[in-house]
Amino acid sequence: MAKNEQVAEAAGNPRRRIPTYELLDEDGLDALERHADWILEKVGVEFRGDAEALGLFRSAGASVDGECVRFEPGLARHLCSTAPSEFRMHGRDPRHTATIGGDHVVFSPTYGPPFVTDLDRGRRYASLEDFENFVKLTYATPWLHHSGGTICEPVDVPVNKRHLDMVYAHLRWSTKPFMGSVTSPDRAEDSIEMARLVFGSDFLEHNCVIQANINVNSPLVFDDVMSGALKAYARANQGCVISPFIVGGAMGPVTLSALLAQAHAEAMVGIALSQLARPGSPMVYGNFLTTMDLRSGAPTFGTPEAVLATYAIGQLCRRLGLPLRCGGHYTASKTADAQAMQESADAMAAAVLAGANFVHQAAGWLEGGLTIGYEKFVMDADHLGMLQRTMQGLGIDENSLAAEAYREAGPGITFLGTAHTLANFETANHPSTLPDTNSFEQWTEDGGLDMQQRANARWKQVLADYEPPAIDPSVDADLRSFVAEKKASMDDAWY
Amino acid sequence: MAKNEQVAEAAGNPRRRIPTYELLDEDGLDALERHADWILEKVGVEFRGDAEALGLFRSAGASVDGECVRFEPGLARHLCSTAPSEFRMHGRDPRHTATIGGDHVVFSPTYGPPFVTDLDRGRRYASLEDFENFVKLTYATPWLHHSGGTICEPVDVPVNKRHLDMVYAHLRWSTKPFMGSVTSPDRAEDSIEMARLVFGSDFLEHNCVIQANINVNSPLVFDDVMSGALKAYARANQGCVISPFIVGGAMGPVTLSALLAQAHAEAMVGIALSQLARPGSPMVYGNFLTTMDLRSGAPTFGTPEAVLATYAIGQLCRRLGLPLRCGGHYTASKTADAQAMQESADAMAAAVLAGANFVHQAAGWLEGGLTIGYEKFVMDADHLGMLQRTMQGLGIDENSLAAEAYREAGPGITFLGTAHTLANFETANHPSTLPDTNSFEQWTEDGGLDMQQRANARWKQVLADYEPPAIDPSVDADLRSFVAEKKASMDDAWY
Repeated sequence: MAKNEQVAEAAGNPRRRIPTYELLDEDGLDALERHADWILEKVGVEFRGDAEALGLFRSAGASVDGECVRFEPGLARHLCSTAPSEFRMHGRDPRHTATIGGDHVVFSPTYGPPFVTDLDRGRRYASLEDFENFVKLTYATPWLHHSGGTICEPVDVPVNKRHLDMVYAHLRWSTKPFMGSVTSPDRAEDSIEMARLVFGSDFLEHNCVIQANINVNSPLVFDDVMSGALKAYARANQGCVISPFIVGGAMGPVTLSALLAQAHAEAMVGIALSQLARPGSPMVYGNFLTTMDLRSGAPTFGTPEAVLATYAIGQLCRRLGLPLRCGGHYTASKTADAQAMQESADAMAAAVLAGANFVHQAAGWLEGGLTIGYEKFVMDADHLGMLQRTMQGLGIDENSLAAEAYREAGPGITFLGTAHTLANFETANHPSTLPDTNSFEQWTEDGGLDMQQRANARWKQVLADYEPPAIDPSVDADLRSFVAEKKASMDDAWY
Repeated sequence: MAKNEQVAEAAGNPRRRIPTYELLDEDGLDALERHADWILEKVGVEFRGDAEALGLFRSAGASVDGECVRFEPGLARHLCSTAPSEFRMHGRDPRHTATIGGDHVVFSPTYGPPFVTDLDRGRRYASLEDFENFVKLTYATPWLHHSGGTICEPVDVPVNKRHLDMVYAHLRWSTKPFMGSVTSPDRAEDSIEMARLVFGSDFLEHNCVIQANINVNSPLVFDDVMSGALKAYARANQGCVISPFIVGGAMGPVTLSALLAQAHAEAMVGIALSQLARPGSPMVYGNFLTTMDLRSGAPTFGTPEAVLATYAIGQLCRRLGLPLRCGGHYTASKTADAQAMQESADAMAAAVLAGANFVHQAAGWLEGGLTIGYEKFVMDADHLGMLQRTMQGLGIDENSLAAEAYREAGPGITFLGTAHTLANFETANHPSTLPDTNSFEQWTEDGGLDMQQRANARWKQVLADYEPPAIDPSVDADLRSFVAEKKASMDDAWY
């Protein structure tokens, strides 16, 4: 077994064993739910260019006016009720199969940036090589349990062929669960077909082996690309994360209560459509909810308002009983500096206490998601390890109360040499490795490197140590043939 | 009114309007309380060289064996019961008078480092000029409400005279509450006497105008310097923060449950002594509780274990009903890099949700407290502003639900230009200023500075803008005379 597989196996898909944080009381949650119902009844949600979706909603009792769908209070919530509260998301290696929902938590890397950066080469357009590197880095860390989707845009590959190379990379260079394409229904179907080649048609029909991220075109719009991909995945019984994408002040009002009600409304409607397409298809209640610097118009991250919204959206989701996507190592910073980790740490701490089950954007995110950083990636992964230790909570038992240690040490006597310390020191504290805990003198002798510089050495080492997981050669050949044939059937498109 | 006073006045002493986070259930808290009682009954706490303290405990019903004091279960808790749950801590300017306890929160700067660092000059021994600079920086920020104590050690002043210059600086260059000396009972008395010159003897007798930080010599020891200073402040009806100082594996066992029980036991015993010296004297239940890298022996900060311990100590303190000190912008990093703010953000987020009423070490801390950094100071202060916004919570009312905005915007239409956005955008989001939210192009044009570099310019600007608060010239003359006479009465001592 490869070294990195051993590491990955050791960690698995963790469970949150600490309570969630309840920011709002029941009255507050009732008010937000009522307002979501008001938005759905009085304002409505548009499904643009998707007559089939409009028909499904009409037949389910919603009122359809042109492309606008309106819901009686409670209807959207009712339509979500067939979605499972928890489901299994299969990896190519069964040891990487994850549970999504309940108190289980899955972390996955950044999604979507066209740019990549590292300390050596600076910021540049991302390439397929970068994409493959991040698949490998994700595979190699025990703290990410999902290979993600468009970890970065492989800008050197034609737009209409990228999904083939990305899905192949996830399936070939990793064995963790992954996400397929949503940029058109055809590309969604291609993604699902490639998963069928690996998992088999029968298995796929009854199990979730591929997911997709469906961004709502907030405010209150689903375009036919998104609703089409959503229906394609749902009908194949595969999973989607339905993510209202709201930067307060632009895609929603600038005040938090409204943002939350709108996000709740949009997520419910997306999940409702999935259940109309195929009842029981495995969905995640998602959101991308943040603030804006209203002077510059730029989105901001890890802000107090975003933190508060994260806690509240977790509570709203728990009322629905669905798996929750929220959070990420979010930052507006252009470099992996103090700002980057301050904003990222604040955003992620809130996501964990909010009860996130699925955390997209958990590693590598910079510049509001426009860039993925190699150094930031390994910093975030290390920090995820810490959060996963925090999630284990504080066990109280005879050993941890350490009565014997007090009998041995006592007032004024160090505990360093007690039998209890010797028996427990290797397991007592989480072994994070990127933060420097040495003396100033030792740190100076080691070059006086900051964490970003140390992270630069780290990601190179992880890539150098990477060993690809085994794959059945005939399956690999099928995948390669599929990609080659599809590519041969299309002209290059660059838009 | 000076510019910085206006800013300071605007913020005041904030209240936490969000719930605390309850990590442990009642059974867990019971178990920790029982174990604290077990430690106090079976192991005991030593008061070294302080026969008076031993006598006070004996007369209160504790069992004294040599210098070791043991308590029947419940006795220490009972002796704490006369300490107030909430008290007023007066500033020289009444606008800076703070409430300590309940849901009120006070942030104060770093305490104790012998070194100082900044990007221009690097790490060096701190001087009185540095000390005065940090008093001024603290005065000028609205996000710190307390001037602290030994913000850094003015190493260029003889050890036996430092307290005079430090107390003078707090009283002259700031009007916020502050801490006096604890390094000997004489120096504690000098500190209190200087406060008397400003506030008047009568006022001081009935009001808390000076505080001290009393570190327990953990494990389970108070030396006579600490117990002597504690009694001096308590008898003058002034406040102390009683801080068990435990790095797990050294001053206590390596497991969290034991650390928590021990910290609880030590804090209760210190507060008990204060109440025996003067019932009703205003105390804070403190702690300095963290982990160690057991490979290097160095303390570590913002770790998962320290975060969990912070939540739990808050719960134990709430059971006693006393004001809680915990947290800080802790880090082991030597520089204000990604590590520094990652660890600091994690530590502070936990302190806020743990219900901290008094946060020492809230600005400037680096290198496990050995160094205070100018850049780190202004970063931390800015981050404190964010946390104070988070503490205000999420209000739900007609305006924040923004029904009108939906009537104006609706599906697919941006909210940027709605009347609701225009009416709310200036107040909706906390105006943090150090994080960069510009585009990559704008950031590059501005020099591509990381947050540490931006902070370098910030602290220089704040010092340049600083305007000293007014002081009655006769009071200032009295203070200067006191300092001069005391200094003249002593030879310089450098150890």
